[in-house]
Amino acid sequence: MSSYGLHRVAEPVGVLPQQAQRLDTSPEPGPDEVVVDVECLNLDAASFRQLREQYGDGDAIRNAVLDIVRTRGKMHNPVTGSGGMLLGAVRAVGPQSPLGLKPGDRIATLVSLTLTPLLITDDLVKWDGTSEQVPCEGTAILFGRSIAAVLPGDIPERLALSVLDVCGAPALTDRVVRRRSAPSVLVLGGGGKSGSLSLAAARRAGAGKLIALVPSEGEAKSVREVGLADSVVIADARDPVAVAEGVGDQVDVTIVCVDVPGCEHGAILATADGGTIVFFSMATSFAAAALGAEGLAADVEMIIGNGYVPGHAAFALDLLRTEPGVRQLFEARERQTSGA
Amino acid sequence: MSSYGLHRVAEPVGVLPQQAQRLDTSPEPGPDEVVVDVECLNLDAASFRQLREQYGDGDAIRNAVLDIVRTRGKMHNPVTGSGGMLLGAVRAVGPQSPLGLKPGDRIATLVSLTLTPLLITDDLVKWDGTSEQVPCEGTAILFGRSIAAVLPGDIPERLALSVLDVCGAPALTDRVVRRRSAPSVLVLGGGGKSGSLSLAAARRAGAGKLIALVPSEGEAKSVREVGLADSVVIADARDPVAVAEGVGDQVDVTIVCVDVPGCEHGAILATADGGTIVFFSMATSFAAAALGAEGLAADVEMIIGNGYVPGHAAFALDLLRTEPGVRQLFEARERQTSGA
Repeated sequence: MSSYGLHRVAEPVGVLPQQAQRLDTSPEPGPDEVVVDVECLNLDAASFRQLREQYGDGDAIRNAVLDIVRTRGKMHNPVTGSGGMLLGAVRAVGPQSPLGLKPGDRIATLVSLTLTPLLITDDLVKWDGTSEQVPCEGTAILFGRSIAAVLPGDIPERLALSVLDVCGAPALTDRVVRRRSAPSVLVLGGGGKSGSLSLAAARRAGAGKLIALVPSEGEAKSVREVGLADSVVIADARDPVAVAEGVGDQVDVTIVCVDVPGCEHGAILATADGGTIVFFSMATSFAAAALGAEGLAADVEMIIGNGYVPGHAAFALDLLRTEPGVRQLFEARERQTSGA
Repeated sequence: MSSYGLHRVAEPVGVLPQQAQRLDTSPEPGPDEVVVDVECLNLDAASFRQLREQYGDGDAIRNAVLDIVRTRGKMHNPVTGSGGMLLGAVRAVGPQSPLGLKPGDRIATLVSLTLTPLLITDDLVKWDGTSEQVPCEGTAILFGRSIAAVLPGDIPERLALSVLDVCGAPALTDRVVRRRSAPSVLVLGGGGKSGSLSLAAARRAGAGKLIALVPSEGEAKSVREVGLADSVVIADARDPVAVAEGVGDQVDVTIVCVDVPGCEHGAILATADGGTIVFFSMATSFAAAALGAEGLAADVEMIIGNGYVPGHAAFALDLLRTEPGVRQLFEARERQTSGA
């Protein structure tokens, strides 16, 4: 079980790192571990949104993140239960590490920050709290079973990090859509990161009709311009009645990529009996989904979006390279968040 | 949308009844509604456990339930987000109700109490707080899309209610197991209500190897005696390492029926790549499942147990009638909870 990082759990002993209250962050590699010099954290969208709402930006949000990491030895948001991922360079590799990394490799971690031992050494002085991408100095630990992607040479790093952060979504969308013959597919949050990648993946996997639901006219315009969907619906994904009325005929597959709570019932009402819903948003409530489907007498299959699908990193980067519409949306988003 | 009960939402207006803070409980039927004279509430197991832990039994837990129902107009546990179901007799039927019920029919509701308008008129004086089955006088409302089962004449009512409370689990287990050829199936919590029904359903659906995981030697003895599984493992389902070691070879399908938090990672570790996990426990954490699978690099499909599958009530009652092992476990449980 050491390949799962059990030996790094400081409290309570015996649980897996994600369940742990506190991890051991000492920056010396165990036999199958890798030590990474961290350069940037990418906070999970639900986590960043929650922190922003509670703390605003500047010192307050910075201190909140530092407190969490100092207390727990990992960036594990206690409210949302979610983390994010990081970018860095390999510092040291244990002799039995199976990950195939070598010192100097620039990598992104594809396992959640909620289970990654993390030591911050610069007090996050370079972060102003306005972006989920957090410049950071410190060290992180990868275990034998961790997943990391060596950064591609042909894509700017922040862009690659943004794509890798959500790379499970298009890979699982591909798998679910391919099970059916030309299904109609609805993507809630189709203008966002995981949403636009999922639209492109659904198109490639043979979706018969592709609908993007977005919250605003501005976002609708962006999605229409890049041609990722056959139609675009403007509605608040948290309003089940508005979602159902906006979408019209129920669809075969619904992909939920909206990072705010309360989107379960709209997804259920929009999906036909016999259909499938994949929830990628970390703001999804298990109880709201389970009881919502029961209460609406909806015979839909509801899948918890697993961030790991074999080959997911290469698949998502390939979509970015080959689908100009995806790249346009990601680059526009980069410009927005960098304030340019 | 009136068939979903939107007109009964008092606060905030425009959401579905399950999301509502407060419902209108007035006991006059709308055109497509049914009014039920309530006889007994069956609290969801996760909800009852949480209430017991917070309030103990007697007056404190009784007042807690009364407070929730008075404040919200429904039995919607604010901590677990779950409810339960109820048993009663039809009092009045609106002229446009599509449910096919008539006054006097004795029924169990198969939609959650979290979306059922409920008015309690006897202060729950007949409930001592030691059982999730709560004798209750009052009225409840069914909507046009609600699901209710007329109680069968050949099964004692409390037993039927116990079965109907969890009838989604065996129906969905049947569907998932039938997708594969003689899969190995693990049921976490195989000695409980949904667990024993799921074991019987998996056997009928062609499971090749059937493993029950239970928390104690006593429960293991019960499951062994009735022959519902090929093998029985004793382990704490919340301890991923113990689950993985106890189960040994990873299985194709895992059904999670343990009504305590923290069982996600054990289920993931016990399931082979390419396998399927169905979470029926209302104590399941979406984030723990999603991030756990990612963190463990586990390529498993994780399904949110939907309490509604067409035909689920008849299927579960048929398992009780025809599988002596299931009936034995349910009757033993009845004797325990009734203190006999």
